[in-house]
Amino acid sequence: MFNSILVPFDGSNGAEQALQKAVNLSIICGNVPLTLLTVYRHHSVLEGSFAVVRPDETDSLEDVMRSHAKAVAEQGKLSAVEAGCTNIRALIKSGPTARTIVAVAQEHACDLIVIGSRGLGSLEGYLLGSVSHKVTSLADCPVLVV
Amino acid sequence: MFNSILVPFDGSNGAEQALQKAVNLSIICGNVPLTLLTVYRHHSVLEGSFAVVRPDETDSLEDVMRSHAKAVAEQGKLSAVEAGCTNIRALIKSGPTARTIVAVAQEHACDLIVIGSRGLGSLEGYLLGSVSHKVTSLADCPVLVV
Repeated sequence: MFNSILVPFDGSNGAEQALQKAVNLSIICGNVPLTLLTVYRHHSVLEGSFAVVRPDETDSLEDVMRSHAKAVAEQGKLSAVEAGCTNIRALIKSGPTARTIVAVAQEHACDLIVIGSRGLGSLEGYLLGSVSHKVTSLADCPVLVV
Repeated sequence: MFNSILVPFDGSNGAEQALQKAVNLSIICGNVPLTLLTVYRHHSVLEGSFAVVRPDETDSLEDVMRSHAKAVAEQGKLSAVEAGCTNIRALIKSGPTARTIVAVAQEHACDLIVIGSRGLGSLEGYLLGSVSHKVTSLADCPVLVV
């Protein structure tokens, strides 16, 4: 009934619960591909919150965030494999969270997004209710809010 | 993976799409019970929008709304049966839409609510985005927004 499932993952408890549901759905639908996505924000030096960062430090800041996101995504992938998932890939992307999730779902022709209703994500706390609400509003496929 | 599914139904296209997904999920999970719920609002004569209704007409107004809700629920049930569902019951309830949906889900120990993201329901237009958002916020079980 679903052919390709996207699960945003930020390492929070809410994201972990969503991941378990996504794994079960992938299996029950015939081991359809599960795409795990960890989004991190690219911070411009023009952003107020980073005004203290010197321009020549932004590259390393981006590197730190990217490598943290990669670790979170790998942790999620491992958790999915342990839960019996055999058809999973993990992606990391930078950008505005909800819009990036919806864009990746379209890009990969996902017909279901499974997302935690809230969480205290280690990256951006992005699985707050506001993000899941934004994703349900923007997505053109069904969204399972766990 | 789900043991009991609730699908609010107001007769709109969005509700019909949600119903089809709910039927498929019920079947794929092993013909688990599907509860179709049509909510209508009880209008008090004290409500401004009904100020033109004479007090002695409110009973018949309630009757009209109830019987309309019943017809909508029966139409949904028929549609589910035609889609292959063999384990369905249809309920009608009056009350505030999102809260009534969440209360019925709890009452019937549903572990999934499947709801249209928006629709122009024939009763109250209740499958507007605001209702699905409210349900995802209030529910203590996963919500699939179709």
